[in-house]
Amino acid sequence: MDKVISWIDETREQSIEKLARLISQPSVSSTGEGVEECAQLLVEMLTEVGLDAKVMPTKGLPAVYAERIAPGTPTVIFYGHYDVQPVGDLSLWETPPFEPDIRNGRMYGRGTGDNKGQLLTHIIAVDAFLKTYGELPCSVKFLLDGEEESGSPNLGDFVEENKELLKADVCYFADGPIHYSGRPQVVFGCRGIIDVEIVLDENIRDCHSGHYGALIPNPAWRLVHLLKTMKDAGGKVLVEGFYDKVRPITPAEEEVLKHIPFDVESYFEGVRYPGTGPEWDRIEALKAHMFQPTMTITGLGSGYTGEGVATIVPAKAVCKIDMRLVADQDPDEIFELIEKHVKKHLPEAKVSGHGKMYPSRTELELPISQAIIGAVKRAWGVDPVVVPSSGASCPEYVFTQILEMPTISVPYANPDENNHAPNENFDLDLFIQGIKTTAHVIDTIAKHEEW
Amino acid sequence: MDKVISWIDETREQSIEKLARLISQPSVSSTGEGVEECAQLLVEMLTEVGLDAKVMPTKGLPAVYAERIAPGTPTVIFYGHYDVQPVGDLSLWETPPFEPDIRNGRMYGRGTGDNKGQLLTHIIAVDAFLKTYGELPCSVKFLLDGEEESGSPNLGDFVEENKELLKADVCYFADGPIHYSGRPQVVFGCRGIIDVEIVLDENIRDCHSGHYGALIPNPAWRLVHLLKTMKDAGGKVLVEGFYDKVRPITPAEEEVLKHIPFDVESYFEGVRYPGTGPEWDRIEALKAHMFQPTMTITGLGSGYTGEGVATIVPAKAVCKIDMRLVADQDPDEIFELIEKHVKKHLPEAKVSGHGKMYPSRTELELPISQAIIGAVKRAWGVDPVVVPSSGASCPEYVFTQILEMPTISVPYANPDENNHAPNENFDLDLFIQGIKTTAHVIDTIAKHEEW
Repeated sequence: MDKVISWIDETREQSIEKLARLISQPSVSSTGEGVEECAQLLVEMLTEVGLDAKVMPTKGLPAVYAERIAPGTPTVIFYGHYDVQPVGDLSLWETPPFEPDIRNGRMYGRGTGDNKGQLLTHIIAVDAFLKTYGELPCSVKFLLDGEEESGSPNLGDFVEENKELLKADVCYFADGPIHYSGRPQVVFGCRGIIDVEIVLDENIRDCHSGHYGALIPNPAWRLVHLLKTMKDAGGKVLVEGFYDKVRPITPAEEEVLKHIPFDVESYFEGVRYPGTGPEWDRIEALKAHMFQPTMTITGLGSGYTGEGVATIVPAKAVCKIDMRLVADQDPDEIFELIEKHVKKHLPEAKVSGHGKMYPSRTELELPISQAIIGAVKRAWGVDPVVVPSSGASCPEYVFTQILEMPTISVPYANPDENNHAPNENFDLDLFIQGIKTTAHVIDTIAKHEEW
Repeated sequence: MDKVISWIDETREQSIEKLARLISQPSVSSTGEGVEECAQLLVEMLTEVGLDAKVMPTKGLPAVYAERIAPGTPTVIFYGHYDVQPVGDLSLWETPPFEPDIRNGRMYGRGTGDNKGQLLTHIIAVDAFLKTYGELPCSVKFLLDGEEESGSPNLGDFVEENKELLKADVCYFADGPIHYSGRPQVVFGCRGIIDVEIVLDENIRDCHSGHYGALIPNPAWRLVHLLKTMKDAGGKVLVEGFYDKVRPITPAEEEVLKHIPFDVESYFEGVRYPGTGPEWDRIEALKAHMFQPTMTITGLGSGYTGEGVATIVPAKAVCKIDMRLVADQDPDEIFELIEKHVKKHLPEAKVSGHGKMYPSRTELELPISQAIIGAVKRAWGVDPVVVPSSGASCPEYVFTQILEMPTISVPYANPDENNHAPNENFDLDLFIQGIKTTAHVIDTIAKHEEW
């Protein structure tokens, strides 16, 4: 490994040049701008390194697939996404988003942190082994999504249709920032999500509240009385069956919770008005965040809410809800429970669904889980923060549920990477550290025997 | 009376010309357009008839006052408002709103029905007595508001400051349409109103529902749980003390309810989707409409309710509520009850009030009440529908509460007058019938002895 690590240090400038080359190519999935070209560029870069790479069509924007098989060795599949968020208000960028610029040891540009810079670390780590030893210690595959920033609408079907091709022993990826304490973190899952919209289209038109107020149903009140049957004031979801499939916390998960740094006060800084809490027990907060589903009203609308008043009975009321789901909840089943609940309590309301993602969780107890924690520790020289699940959602389930393999992610970006925001950036020391981390992971997987 | 009625018929064309003259003068209180000029024009028209008339300043737009005292006789004060609603989308008018046009026996123009045409009937009825007999059988006063379409914000103070000047035995006015059955109606009150806004400004910004959803308070949910404590699903208001002052229904009111035509199905036509009720017992519906206060959510807003989804915990939630109040509820007291309730159940929420009006009710049992019902019956030759209260709100309380006089209104317009809408109009036969009705009322008041 020393030779590999030395090579990574010696070729730092070439790696940064590769990063700049990748960032210079726009790839905005919401508009399609540059996506096909970026897929082609990645195929070139993967091929240069020595992999068999190709652009693969999906029902939407293409995926990129690559592999290099070392027969008789275990296989890791690297996941990443090469599409980026729209750049937003250009005037808020200090330098143009697709003209990478280095300032204060960071590269600025759209996609540096999320996720081109991070997926590139895996390609360079593979290169490091090939340049140093001429061959890889394990087999590698790459699956790079071109639609993650648009909710990965076609990734599930694509993976379902290419199960054989994508077969591997473990999935590994790097996305998001390192722990805000400055330590690395190893993440074993994410929550799923299902979005639901409830519409009560009650009256043909808004009505005069004096002429009709006493006699006509008010959809806003009716929606309030529906919603109160769905979640109590203490936060418990009341929809029958909602918690039935929630997977219990394992002893190993209970144990790692104790070691996760979590400062309630700094968590709410910039989010809550000073002095307004809420106060949480640290362990309870972490459990709620990782192991419990939520039911969040994301939008509520009825009648007139502008300046002054409109003395009306509104025609219609709308509520949008997003539910974050934990292993082993199924978004389709949860949607059905909601539909059933609404049908019982307010049959006139219409329920519809938008996007969904399944939850994902990989067991901490697996030998490969512990092995990768060890790899990260070796790469960094410190104990990583072990995180059983993120609170947010990503398409990780395609690996754990469809391909049925353990899936572990180790974020490499700086906490102030500004992903989805102007002046997105990636600390270049962390970029190089990411390459080294992936190299340690490859080495660890190669040596791992307890599958 | 025969001579007065004949004069009214003989001068029909002059009356219609007067109406056209008044309609031609814009008087939009929301913009102020033409209001001062219209007040001046009314002073001219009242003076032409033989009254002492003047424009009187208020804290807002001016009122018009006029009087002609016949010593030793009872006094009626005619109320009306000379301001009009904005014309709205001009392209929806068949003829320009301030260029009165006669089609199919109706005059079209802004203010024909609401309220210039109706207040003009009182002026012409006074003229009829003076032209026929040279004098009036009773004393008359006029108070014409210039801000009714803006909520009469200064009428209460104006009346309070001019109590002596405005002293009278009874207040009479004509506004709104005749009963939809084609019969006249005599209305003895209206509900009051208080508007309240509840704002929960919970988080500094909208937050990611995955990163914060489990741990941060959600103002939309908190508002739902507040609202459910304010009104139950059956429609009963739960705020302590809300119903305490509601005046019981009198035997006379119970009796007239039986005779009010009210067809539930036609009431909801164009308002409810076909076949969706709600079903109401006729008497219960009338009682709820006239004698019970309401609590109506007029607006509800939080987070994102546009197309698609925003996976956020909203920063803020807002609810607007209007409460229609009945005699003897006091809007200020009700506001305090709401404030107290919110302070108890959701102390972080802010409560503010917008407009308010007091309820008004005149007793059916009063001799003058029965006398005016008789006058309307004589004018029309049919029994009028006796309505103890309208469901809507108007500034009638300035007469019943501040000036402490019985106040009775008899609407003269056609049910399809399109007030507040394009192509507002007044059936000219009803306009002439209105003048005759006012003449009968004057005659009846003059002869009335049981004050």
